[in-house]
Amino acid sequence: MKDLEKYIKANKDRFLEELFELIRIPSISSHPDRKPDMYRAAEKWKELLLKAGADNAEIFETDGNPVTYGEKIIDAEAPTVLVYGHMDVMPVDPLELWNTDPFEPVIKDGKIWARGADDDKGQAFMHAKAFEYLVQTNNLPCNVKFLIEGEEEVGSPSLPAFCKKHKKMLAADVILVSDTSMIAPDIPSITTGLRGLAYWQVEVTGPNADLHSGLFGGAVANPINVLAKMIAQTMDEDGRILIPGFYDDVQEVSKKERSMLGKAPFSLDAYKKALDVKEVFGEKGYTTNERTGIRPTFDVCGIWGGYTGEGAKTVLPSKAYAKISTRLVPNQSHEKIAKLFIKYFTSIAPKTVKVKVEYLHGGPSYVCPIDLPAYKAAEKAYTDVYGKTPVPVRSGGSIPIISTFESVLGIKSVLMGFGLQSDAIHSPNENYPLEQFFNGIRTIPLFYKYFAEGAKKK
Amino acid sequence: MKDLEKYIKANKDRFLEELFELIRIPSISSHPDRKPDMYRAAEKWKELLLKAGADNAEIFETDGNPVTYGEKIIDAEAPTVLVYGHMDVMPVDPLELWNTDPFEPVIKDGKIWARGADDDKGQAFMHAKAFEYLVQTNNLPCNVKFLIEGEEEVGSPSLPAFCKKHKKMLAADVILVSDTSMIAPDIPSITTGLRGLAYWQVEVTGPNADLHSGLFGGAVANPINVLAKMIAQTMDEDGRILIPGFYDDVQEVSKKERSMLGKAPFSLDAYKKALDVKEVFGEKGYTTNERTGIRPTFDVCGIWGGYTGEGAKTVLPSKAYAKISTRLVPNQSHEKIAKLFIKYFTSIAPKTVKVKVEYLHGGPSYVCPIDLPAYKAAEKAYTDVYGKTPVPVRSGGSIPIISTFESVLGIKSVLMGFGLQSDAIHSPNENYPLEQFFNGIRTIPLFYKYFAEGAKKK
Repeated sequence: MKDLEKYIKANKDRFLEELFELIRIPSISSHPDRKPDMYRAAEKWKELLLKAGADNAEIFETDGNPVTYGEKIIDAEAPTVLVYGHMDVMPVDPLELWNTDPFEPVIKDGKIWARGADDDKGQAFMHAKAFEYLVQTNNLPCNVKFLIEGEEEVGSPSLPAFCKKHKKMLAADVILVSDTSMIAPDIPSITTGLRGLAYWQVEVTGPNADLHSGLFGGAVANPINVLAKMIAQTMDEDGRILIPGFYDDVQEVSKKERSMLGKAPFSLDAYKKALDVKEVFGEKGYTTNERTGIRPTFDVCGIWGGYTGEGAKTVLPSKAYAKISTRLVPNQSHEKIAKLFIKYFTSIAPKTVKVKVEYLHGGPSYVCPIDLPAYKAAEKAYTDVYGKTPVPVRSGGSIPIISTFESVLGIKSVLMGFGLQSDAIHSPNENYPLEQFFNGIRTIPLFYKYFAEGAKKK
Repeated sequence: MKDLEKYIKANKDRFLEELFELIRIPSISSHPDRKPDMYRAAEKWKELLLKAGADNAEIFETDGNPVTYGEKIIDAEAPTVLVYGHMDVMPVDPLELWNTDPFEPVIKDGKIWARGADDDKGQAFMHAKAFEYLVQTNNLPCNVKFLIEGEEEVGSPSLPAFCKKHKKMLAADVILVSDTSMIAPDIPSITTGLRGLAYWQVEVTGPNADLHSGLFGGAVANPINVLAKMIAQTMDEDGRILIPGFYDDVQEVSKKERSMLGKAPFSLDAYKKALDVKEVFGEKGYTTNERTGIRPTFDVCGIWGGYTGEGAKTVLPSKAYAKISTRLVPNQSHEKIAKLFIKYFTSIAPKTVKVKVEYLHGGPSYVCPIDLPAYKAAEKAYTDVYGKTPVPVRSGGSIPIISTFESVLGIKSVLMGFGLQSDAIHSPNENYPLEQFFNGIRTIPLFYKYFAEGAKKK
């Protein structure tokens, strides 16, 4: 694309410095005391969009964290692309496992190391710079809108209402999102499916105070033992989830499609080696990629209770807690699953304890058809940059808001991700290869070009 | 006893102020950074013993926390009582559940509220004051030695070696300990049995890093789910512990003895109400008191892993941990049980995870015969003060060092406890009724008197 390489070369260092300024803001959405940082991040995005060439940019209040919206309308008749990204990041604990400060980005081994380097500050920022290039070099072929939210990592609780309220402002022909990953740096792929999500917090209360485990142990139900048993009762030996009705609405994927999915390059040995596990575990009858791509799953994301400090304390605790999530596949309703789990989990609780289950958040799954014109435009853009046609893949991850965009705004999303599985998003030492970062900035303008051309032909 | 009431009345306020000075030292033995406080507590005890009238008192170094030893030898031929107590206390978390500062004692509703108010600062301190009275009023009828250690709450790891090394110094006819409780303020009892203990920390490792639960969930074993299942496999629905060989050496208690134990006053309704539980849980076929008194038990004292902060974080954690303890009954070897558990727990681990089990500490159980002359002396002392013969009871708690005293020093212990079940030892808001505190100071000198008289008769 005209002058693109030149533009990148000339502005490379500035791009990185601007991204680092964004990363340095510790905008962890699940920590309420980070609220001021959410506003700093929103301001930063407003500044970035205006500097890049937006006609206007604005910070909107929501019931939760602020949203930054900006736009450039070149022609009311031209197609419109709505870029979605998020300014919030995941918590950073366990902090001791980080090699460097999570909020002070460093470049090492050709990668940016920091919380949000990929998810989603690095990836969303590529769009700001691709947009900047298009505006500054007079190459912008369509209208562009930016919607950058601050609650993606906690399930985007405020964004559905925001979308309903600002439906007209957000009107677009397609939503463009970079918040997913590719198979490998030399195997481009586009995510065509996302799993849904449901997330609960469980509290099991035994006696009304922590007790001496010698004086009371064996005579009063221990809430940790009970919680462990209840969790054990939620999945069988074959990795099947035991919540009644859980699989009722799961779309079984055809043999043909499974065989296509099976063609994605994958080495189980390399996978096990990378994770340092002797054996993988998942639902019987499915491959590793099927388990994360087309099947729902159940994980305890956190557990705590009793004495967790140094050394030994003999205590029969009053309470035990767990954070539990499931990933859902197309056609499963997260609201329905939320209720089924609560019903099941409280039903298996013995009378010796009190159980409280709180539904924290959730979202439906999403599928992008591969014959969508915007998908075709993305496919061509990747092919130009990577020299290979991208593989359509179903991801195990969830971006609950993508389904909401479809149901509320009536707009399909194309998930042009440039992350890699090795980017350790949500984990210590998150990173983002510079090559992927700059390839993203190369690919996005091509998407605009092909998407606008396709729209003209119609 | 001569002048005793007068002495208590005259010195009451000073007794409490001295105890409070001891309590204010946060001597938590399981926190290595509290080591300087352990030395302060040891110094305080040295000062207390010398002030009370000990011929000499000294602080001994061990591999762990220091030990304070003091003695008064009135006559080489006279019987000798070795008083054992501990200066260390349990951790105080969860701190937010305390109504007052755990290390700033307050008197309210006739009780002392603080960590260690009962266990064991309050109870051990009664001995210092009883001794002071006997010396100061020239009533001391026998030799007295004090052994105050600083690692009881972490299983007394250094004391066995200390006892071996100082066998001669510690030589005595009986060991007197106040570190247990009575049935009720109007139902005196003496603990004649203590359960043994074994305590482990378990680490389950799945993948080598925290992973995104969407991208990896369902395809890799989740260490929390696995740990929960393993814990669930350790006890059946009837509260029977499933570790093979666990019950092999358990002494079954005769029908006759069970029927005697059944006569101890106990209201299940009041018990459930006090703990706010709808139903109790324990080994099938045994009553609540039998479950804690004559049966071994299994409790998870702590569990942690994954995300435990505010809100929702979707993560498939790398590790999950648990602190696990069993209480053992006479004839069960804690070393054998330690090995059996490690063998079983690692054997039920699936190949999808790595499991590490560390044996933190343990100790054998103990039985005191009710025809022991020292027991008879204690019985008479309680009867004088409380107006009722004390009931012999088997406690569910453990004082591992008591068995070590028997095996290493060849000395039996008498457990003259004045605590109450409502004292919340090891829990927030530990307390100790002033009435029990002063009744202890009244009872102990009578024990000396009757014990010395009994020895003379022989």
